[in-house]
Amino acid sequence: MTDQRMRLFAFDFQAPAHLSAGLWRHPLDQGHRYNDLQYWVDYAKMIEEARFDGVFFADNSGYQDVYQGSVDAGLADAAQIPAQDPFMVISAMAAATKHIGFGVTASTSYEQPYALARRFATLDHLTKGRIGWNVVTSYAGSAGRNLGTGALPHSERYAMAAEHLEVCFKLWESSWDEDAIVRDAERCVYVEPSRVHPINHHGKYFDVPGIGQFAPSPQRSPVIFEAGTSPKGIALAAQTAEAVFVNAVTIAALKRQVDALRKGAAEAGRDPRSLKVLQMLNVIVAPTDEEAQAKYDTYRSLVSYAGAMARYSGWTGVDMSQFDPDVPLKNVKTDGGQSTISLFTEVDSGKDWTPRDIAEFIGIAGTGPSIVGSPTTVADELCRWVDESGADGFNLASAVKYQDLADFIEHVVPVLQKRGRMWTEYDEGSTLREKLHGAGNARLLADHPARRLGAPLVDAP
Amino acid sequence: MTDQRMRLFAFDFQAPAHLSAGLWRHPLDQGHRYNDLQYWVDYAKMIEEARFDGVFFADNSGYQDVYQGSVDAGLADAAQIPAQDPFMVISAMAAATKHIGFGVTASTSYEQPYALARRFATLDHLTKGRIGWNVVTSYAGSAGRNLGTGALPHSERYAMAAEHLEVCFKLWESSWDEDAIVRDAERCVYVEPSRVHPINHHGKYFDVPGIGQFAPSPQRSPVIFEAGTSPKGIALAAQTAEAVFVNAVTIAALKRQVDALRKGAAEAGRDPRSLKVLQMLNVIVAPTDEEAQAKYDTYRSLVSYAGAMARYSGWTGVDMSQFDPDVPLKNVKTDGGQSTISLFTEVDSGKDWTPRDIAEFIGIAGTGPSIVGSPTTVADELCRWVDESGADGFNLASAVKYQDLADFIEHVVPVLQKRGRMWTEYDEGSTLREKLHGAGNARLLADHPARRLGAPLVDAP
Repeated sequence: MTDQRMRLFAFDFQAPAHLSAGLWRHPLDQGHRYNDLQYWVDYAKMIEEARFDGVFFADNSGYQDVYQGSVDAGLADAAQIPAQDPFMVISAMAAATKHIGFGVTASTSYEQPYALARRFATLDHLTKGRIGWNVVTSYAGSAGRNLGTGALPHSERYAMAAEHLEVCFKLWESSWDEDAIVRDAERCVYVEPSRVHPINHHGKYFDVPGIGQFAPSPQRSPVIFEAGTSPKGIALAAQTAEAVFVNAVTIAALKRQVDALRKGAAEAGRDPRSLKVLQMLNVIVAPTDEEAQAKYDTYRSLVSYAGAMARYSGWTGVDMSQFDPDVPLKNVKTDGGQSTISLFTEVDSGKDWTPRDIAEFIGIAGTGPSIVGSPTTVADELCRWVDESGADGFNLASAVKYQDLADFIEHVVPVLQKRGRMWTEYDEGSTLREKLHGAGNARLLADHPARRLGAPLVDAP
Repeated sequence: MTDQRMRLFAFDFQAPAHLSAGLWRHPLDQGHRYNDLQYWVDYAKMIEEARFDGVFFADNSGYQDVYQGSVDAGLADAAQIPAQDPFMVISAMAAATKHIGFGVTASTSYEQPYALARRFATLDHLTKGRIGWNVVTSYAGSAGRNLGTGALPHSERYAMAAEHLEVCFKLWESSWDEDAIVRDAERCVYVEPSRVHPINHHGKYFDVPGIGQFAPSPQRSPVIFEAGTSPKGIALAAQTAEAVFVNAVTIAALKRQVDALRKGAAEAGRDPRSLKVLQMLNVIVAPTDEEAQAKYDTYRSLVSYAGAMARYSGWTGVDMSQFDPDVPLKNVKTDGGQSTISLFTEVDSGKDWTPRDIAEFIGIAGTGPSIVGSPTTVADELCRWVDESGADGFNLASAVKYQDLADFIEHVVPVLQKRGRMWTEYDEGSTLREKLHGAGNARLLADHPARRLGAPLVDAP
């Protein structure tokens, strides 16, 4: 299959509710099973049976307490709280599958690179090369307060992220030679010491003088996912990301983001196509357009305004309770959080958004669009989104947890498979990186900037 | 079954080699499969079939680089390096089993309590209450150097551990009321905000003002395991531990440790018997005593002196390469690391240990004894160890990885079961804590000091 194939990831959060607000009240919603191991094992089998590329778990190191200056609205709507540590279910999901990849979110602001690098290397071994890291810098002030470092300003967070990634890449790519493990009983040498190298990293944020604790894994570095579309986010992605998750409201906006990311990659000396772009969206599908629209209307009727605003205030850093729900927002400036308000007020929409408009929109699928219709309508629309924007595929959120995904698999996957836009059988490349870049590409592509760290950085100790 | 039942845990390390040195060369050793997920799944099934209480994973945040001032000898013998993050395999092992518990080692010196508390709560949910935490303060200087904080002195590490645990207990026991999750669709309330409380912790090492991110799990707090037998270690255990792993060389030494720990527990206002003590040891069993002795001799012939000294130097903080292997050690002072040298030189042994004696001893099973013999001999000896010392059971290490455990299960378990010293069927208490304290005790016992934190610490926000 050629590049016609869409890359497709389920997008989820190990919590009763993710992006949608109030929809946990839908009778088919399964979010309440978020801490049931069997739920995730069955989930993994289902998306593998449907030939997804993988699942992608968001996370938040804190919680939403900007709206009304309190966490109360966030708690009442289970706005990503309670939330599990997303790393913990991966091995169970991996043991039940062979092909799907696993993207896990972890923060460069609150994790030590030395420990985090080992965690990902462990999962890369255990999954046989099916792990990816969604690199985030964490926007929530609550995370900074509870994790002891305080919330860093936006620019500082990105500088720290760049150095954090540099440390991790050094540990993954250059500390242990490919042939370091010899297991030579005769000489009584398991690891050849001359083939393991201290990374001697001494930076602004991190000092890691020593060797890594882990042997080279199938992919070495996990697949690096990022999500930022701010100038600093694009700059970091150009240097380090292999795939970027975006959530444009329109195809035109998506195309602009794709172009900006690819331009950044090219400027970093990379093949622009080697930076994959995945659009986040939600699909509401039913046998006919009318039934799908009725389903969408039901969903909209369940949206919780306060739940949506709890999320939105957290994402933007702006307490939305200060605005009249029905007065259009214009020229509202954010304080360095995500630029979601400006996205709604300035781009593409052709209307002046009110807080209530925003709540109704993001209450379904966060800041990504909802595609509503029959299987054919949805498939047409998905093809249009990738073909017109140059994006590579989708990160598929669920407004009604589990059920939306199951409906997509039942109704849309067969249509996309028939059109040659999805696999019917997995190809031979079993690692996550090969799902993005094709069989044979288990390791960072040759033009990835981190490959410059690939040679041992120092002589053997 | 009464208290006659021994508590029995497999003791392991997710690495090619754990305590034994050079024995990875034994043809039956399976340590090289340490990063194979199926290996651990099969392992979990095997010990559950044998009615173990669980498995206990050691870990090291650093590596052994004290011997000869280098990590080379440690690498050559795979002395706990490469090593996996022990958290990562747990969910796969849990998905394949229903009863066994999982003890996981994590360091209070290098983990943020806010993040670590969520990790354990996640696993407590996913395993349905089968998780335990082996609390360590991390002795390795390499860990301090690579994890950015520097290695803290012994006393400082214990003060930090006590506060770290206090933060975790507050998050586990008192941030969320038992009935915080209401999932009331009519009122559109998933979590009742008035039932979630900030912990307002402001201490010397940690500031955690906010609420926990997780709902109450089956055990709330994981079962707290500790291993220290220094005065500070005993003091911490008396206040916080539910079970302590010790590695006495003789039954008399074990009895002294048991008595000291129970005395400490009593002084902390607890029932002394509520602090369980598990002795670490290795069993080498064969159909007859002669065959077992021959097996032991084979093991001894495979011990690597450098590999044993790499570990021992790391544990004690003393570079053992400065001593003649064949001259007895006397009056060697350690610098605040584990007191292993004094244990060998001053206690019970009735001989002056040389470095080579130590290597031959610890090269099999670290600082715990090896029990060698036929199934009956071994069973007699195990009964004697618990009956004469007052200890509660064992942490069973394997000199030849996997195979020693399989041999124990084949030969010794049936004998212990016949004598009523091990379960033939699990009882109804499915959590790990109930395995220690009996069915109905899923939560911290009433006399545990952390229960004083059980009431909400502050009014609702």
